[in-house]
Amino acid sequence: MKVLILGGDGFCGWPTSLHLSQCGHDVVIVDNLSRRFIDVELEVESLTPIRPIHERLAVWKEHTGKEIGFVNLDLAHDYDRLLDLLMAERPDAVVNFAEQRAAPYSMRSPKAKRYTVDNNISGNHNLLCAIVESGLDIAVVHLGTMGVYGYGWTGTAPIPEGYLTVTVPTPDGELEREILHPANPGSVYHMTKTLDQLLFAFYAKNDGIRITDLHQGIVWGTQTPETALDERLINRFDYDGDYGTVLNRFIMQAAIGHPLTVHGTGGQTRAFIHIRDTVRCIEIALNNPPDCGDQVSVFNQVTETHRVRDLAKLISGLTGADVAYLPNPRKEAEENELNVTRERFLALGLDPTTLSEGLLEETRNIGAKYADRADRTKIVARSVWKAGMEVSPDL
Amino acid sequence: MKVLILGGDGFCGWPTSLHLSQCGHDVVIVDNLSRRFIDVELEVESLTPIRPIHERLAVWKEHTGKEIGFVNLDLAHDYDRLLDLLMAERPDAVVNFAEQRAAPYSMRSPKAKRYTVDNNISGNHNLLCAIVESGLDIAVVHLGTMGVYGYGWTGTAPIPEGYLTVTVPTPDGELEREILHPANPGSVYHMTKTLDQLLFAFYAKNDGIRITDLHQGIVWGTQTPETALDERLINRFDYDGDYGTVLNRFIMQAAIGHPLTVHGTGGQTRAFIHIRDTVRCIEIALNNPPDCGDQVSVFNQVTETHRVRDLAKLISGLTGADVAYLPNPRKEAEENELNVTRERFLALGLDPTTLSEGLLEETRNIGAKYADRADRTKIVARSVWKAGMEVSPDL
Repeated sequence: MKVLILGGDGFCGWPTSLHLSQCGHDVVIVDNLSRRFIDVELEVESLTPIRPIHERLAVWKEHTGKEIGFVNLDLAHDYDRLLDLLMAERPDAVVNFAEQRAAPYSMRSPKAKRYTVDNNISGNHNLLCAIVESGLDIAVVHLGTMGVYGYGWTGTAPIPEGYLTVTVPTPDGELEREILHPANPGSVYHMTKTLDQLLFAFYAKNDGIRITDLHQGIVWGTQTPETALDERLINRFDYDGDYGTVLNRFIMQAAIGHPLTVHGTGGQTRAFIHIRDTVRCIEIALNNPPDCGDQVSVFNQVTETHRVRDLAKLISGLTGADVAYLPNPRKEAEENELNVTRERFLALGLDPTTLSEGLLEETRNIGAKYADRADRTKIVARSVWKAGMEVSPDL
Repeated sequence: MKVLILGGDGFCGWPTSLHLSQCGHDVVIVDNLSRRFIDVELEVESLTPIRPIHERLAVWKEHTGKEIGFVNLDLAHDYDRLLDLLMAERPDAVVNFAEQRAAPYSMRSPKAKRYTVDNNISGNHNLLCAIVESGLDIAVVHLGTMGVYGYGWTGTAPIPEGYLTVTVPTPDGELEREILHPANPGSVYHMTKTLDQLLFAFYAKNDGIRITDLHQGIVWGTQTPETALDERLINRFDYDGDYGTVLNRFIMQAAIGHPLTVHGTGGQTRAFIHIRDTVRCIEIALNNPPDCGDQVSVFNQVTETHRVRDLAKLISGLTGADVAYLPNPRKEAEENELNVTRERFLALGLDPTTLSEGLLEETRNIGAKYADRADRTKIVARSVWKAGMEVSPDL
């Protein structure tokens, strides 16, 4: 099928684009390179050396003979060009990764909060609006987040895949209703994904757009079989306090001899998924769109859950790294349980990559190989959720 | 108290500004005059003759000696000026009416859909963000809509004021939780108000902003005691298919000898409130903000409910007007029940204006007095919810 990958130059978008191309799909990346601009703004770079997008695409063609298109377009501000693109390409599906995706970045400044809301909501709404205006039957796959559910709302009860059956008391007796799981986002970034859910619910109901929303856990790992083909295809590896994801940060910290940075008690339980499984999940979702006029199809895109301090202990045990307990810049529960239903992808054939030592080893090789590219002043997380919260100095 | 009225030049904002000024509050209107620009775009005008904002304010001062400030500012795009304004004025509260408020307009074109989302969400988020950045304790009062609840979700069970207590089954037994009432918006406009709810929930939780969200029914009537002081203070009266509200449209149609336009079966039950009660409710809400760190305070701002065809019959009986049943440009249930809880404002002293014949008479006088300003080609509602839906020719 023909697929547009919005945000196809980013951490999830790039390996997904290669994977879908490898699977035989006709892929066009649409990206305004915003993630690279944010690197410039934050004065930090991916630990792995990222090549310019056109070089990436040329190398991919050199290795596979497969062509991936590229369009530089700002989804939130280039509506007319987006519509023209849909009419010209007539894709079967669009995958939307084109959202600012870091919770700490979304809280670091008023400007970043506003950018996150404007970029994510206007961009996603432009996509839905343009699909309606095009008159084409284009399926949408969107990357949501486990964070739409909040943590701890139901204690140890399993979080369902998007929808919750509840009982409402009424004067005439009890009503049973299936509702979108109540939203309880923990940052402006997570909040935008809860807004996206309401955009999707409306456009599915009113216009019959076929939408799949994937509530993903925290991604770890770097490479997929496709990005590992050539160093010039390598995927991003973020380790800084804003964009680095917790497990990759621990791996990198251990590799460069930095203490593992646990912010708060480490009692936070989080859901995880390897980047190799992310790209497989996207392909499964593309192959299994909902019917027109149905409700939005929601998957929990996670493979396991861990407590942050347990991950720190695991890496520390493997590497001998120290663990540093630092002030938590987030407003969140010190400890939470997390039990996530994840039947849908398993039923459709996902064979999860588990957190085995072998994979940690592989990721450590990324950390060690590129250790000289690390900037130790960028590691501690310092984007606070509210002015005046305590932050740690560099370690 | 000092109050900024965002959107203070509009149908609800203008009479509210005068009422709060009359009550002794220090009022500053902040508006980019967008509603007047939309009149130009739609090639229609308020049935009542609206004077320029500076003339309105000068006349108010002439009659009362009271000064109302005015700042021309686009909430969605002038963030820095908004922040400067908050720091300079240091208001106790801000009332946000600065959202595109017509469901049919929000569905009339891709451009209008996108304007509604961008204006309402970026504007409202800019306000919240600027309050946080200011460091000031500024209470927010926001005009929501009954439409956030959708219609008919609970049949004849009463819709609570914002929050619903539900029971969730878990492996360990049943959990009882109070949740934000599930959203089921019927248009892009209504959808933006459901997005606003999530913005509010987050900023109340994370930053302790004291927020009141008023889920208002359909407003009818034109004048308040303050706008009736002088013809140059008169409030808007919209009768066109996009901005006219149903009861005022019937009144105006009867006055000019046009059939009453019932779109669909008229089986839709809707909630109503007189503009005189709107302005009183805002004052009550300003005087009763929630505590810092509480959940958002939600009121249902409605005084009665009626079925559309019953209103048409009532007006027809009073005036002899014919009733025309036209194709419905909206996607909605043909018939719905609506039972709304409205205890909070009554408990705080609201004495509702009821739909008595005397008030209909008063509104008819507006319709008759300004009948020569009516454009009959603007009456039939033609903004369809989906391309290809049937619309009526002019009657």
